[in-house]
Amino acid sequence: MDGLIPWSELGLQLLEWIATAAFALSGIVAAARKRMDVVGVCVVACLAAFGGGTLRDLLLDHRPFFWIRQQEALIGVFTLCLLAVGLMRQHHINWTERAIFWPDALGLGLFNASGIHLALNAGMPVFVAILMGVITGIFGGVLRDMVCNEIPATLRDHRPYAVCAFAGGVLYAGLYALGQPDALCMAACAAFTVGLRALAIWRNWSLKTWGQG
Amino acid sequence: MDGLIPWSELGLQLLEWIATAAFALSGIVAAARKRMDVVGVCVVACLAAFGGGTLRDLLLDHRPFFWIRQQEALIGVFTLCLLAVGLMRQHHINWTERAIFWPDALGLGLFNASGIHLALNAGMPVFVAILMGVITGIFGGVLRDMVCNEIPATLRDHRPYAVCAFAGGVLYAGLYALGQPDALCMAACAAFTVGLRALAIWRNWSLKTWGQG
Amino acid sequence: MDGLIPWSELGLQLLEWIATAAFALSGIVAAARKRMDVVGVCVVACLAAFGGGTLRDLLLDHRPFFWIRQQEALIGVFTLCLLAVGLMRQHHINWTERAIFWPDALGLGLFNASGIHLALNAGMPVFVAILMGVITGIFGGVLRDMVCNEIPATLRDHRPYAVCAFAGGVLYAGLYALGQPDALCMAACAAFTVGLRALAIWRNWSLKTWGQG
Repeated sequence: MDGLIPWSELGLQLLEWIATAAFALSGIVAAARKRMDVVGVCVVACLAAFGGGTLRDLLLDHRPFFWIRQQEALIGVFTLCLLAVGLMRQHHINWTERAIFWPDALGLGLFNASGIHLALNAGMPVFVAILMGVITGIFGGVLRDMVCNEIPATLRDHRPYAVCAFAGGVLYAGLYALGQPDALCMAACAAFTVGLRALAIWRNWSLKTWGQG
Repeated sequence: MDGLIPWSELGLQLLEWIATAAFALSGIVAAARKRMDVVGVCVVACLAAFGGGTLRDLLLDHRPFFWIRQQEALIGVFTLCLLAVGLMRQHHINWTERAIFWPDALGLGLFNASGIHLALNAGMPVFVAILMGVITGIFGGVLRDMVCNEIPATLRDHRPYAVCAFAGGVLYAGLYALGQPDALCMAACAAFTVGLRALAIWRNWSLKTWGQG
Repeated sequence: MDGLIPWSELGLQLLEWIATAAFALSGIVAAARKRMDVVGVCVVACLAAFGGGTLRDLLLDHRPFFWIRQQEALIGVFTLCLLAVGLMRQHHINWTERAIFWPDALGLGLFNASGIHLALNAGMPVFVAILMGVITGIFGGVLRDMVCNEIPATLRDHRPYAVCAFAGGVLYAGLYALGQPDALCMAACAAFTVGLRALAIWRNWSLKTWGQG
């Protein structure tokens, strides 16, 4: 993430941790709904939090993986899992979709921007880079749902999620083509993705794919 | 795909595009049956079309992935998805298995031959190369069915599919051991796989695994 | 696996083959329960036997994959599958969980130790290395259950499995930090994992995650 001045890099790092924690939380909730044990909670949380970024790094051949470079993130997610399990044993917590909406939207936007940034830096063509952003944003959730034996929500709920990331990616590509600096492209892409996602949920947009969807 | 003269390479490229489109179509049909949204259609189509080849490239450490080198294929599959979604919204289309039989069989044969070819060129032992052909041919469909929350049809329907690819691979290995040129091995392998698959469906062959299958 | 004297290396190799066969057997049983065909049996057995190790090698960027270097293991698993299918067609065999308990526990312990060993040799931080051991031990089973359209047993059955591997990994890391030789660390880790797993089953331990689990 070169090209960013230090304090914005620190802020970005902080936002990334919030996003990773949000994705991990969505995994914890999914595992709890399936009444998995503590191992299941940890595995599903890790798949949700690190799945998208790992697939991105795998497809871009970007080694070592980001969660190996940042062991803290891994330890943080495990701590979060143990805390959540401990908490849920004592209290009956009803995690609603609403509760994790903002961190999840933030995660989508930030992972989207980081995926495009890394893909363009690796010399990928622009359409591949936009897709890499979408993959980074959504595949954690896809893996989470697959291991929980569900059809991934992202693929079936007819609500714009990946589409918001795609639109943000097109904005990134446009600004990039105009020669804007990386930091601006990333910030605009992430903000636009998050904003579009919030707008889509607020206005209750739906992708009417099959006429009666 | 060295060792092929230009016009045959062009023909091969054309056949590969047809095969990729056929696999993508099978993904579109699977997603439509599950009533996924447009994102689901695109993701399942991409998994079906590029899953086998990507796994092959991953296992062979063959970078960059073929759909990154050939951005056109990726754009083509997305265009196909959007066309299909638009078409299906207006007309109720009943995609039968029969409709995608020939392109699917063609895809199996071609991906099988290309998988073995690349594996042998990468210096893999012959049994591994034959398996790599089978993996290239079948894993798109396996991933497609997994993300649709089904047991993969290839693994359970007791009809020869992977077995045809394996037989074609043995033929490839035999010709290769006899010192035949690559182009001949590939053509014979692909044609034999497709022919065997057509014969199996026409004669209604079944792999009676459990006595009463 | 340097640092081992030849005869112990031979013994280790033998144990690894037993473990691989045990994991393959668990895949055969899972596929038979779902009444898959012979292709399904082979694919599920291979995923169970080689999935964990392949994911480990992929995450560590350790090429070529171990089943490509050891073509014999691959041929062995296929032979086992064909034998099992032939046998099961003639006799109705009731594979119980008990029957594959010891080889499966052995596999868990050995793959756990080998995963940590390879990760530490690749310069991974210690927490990542312990996780790599757990991943090597459990992901074959996770993939096996995912392709069979089940929530992975490891994640939901509330019985210590991954946790035993984790405890063995902590022991490995402790001995390693004390400067013990690799062979001792591996042996202690594998033996402790297997012993703990046996104890957990014998004493019927359960991970009471949700209060009423």
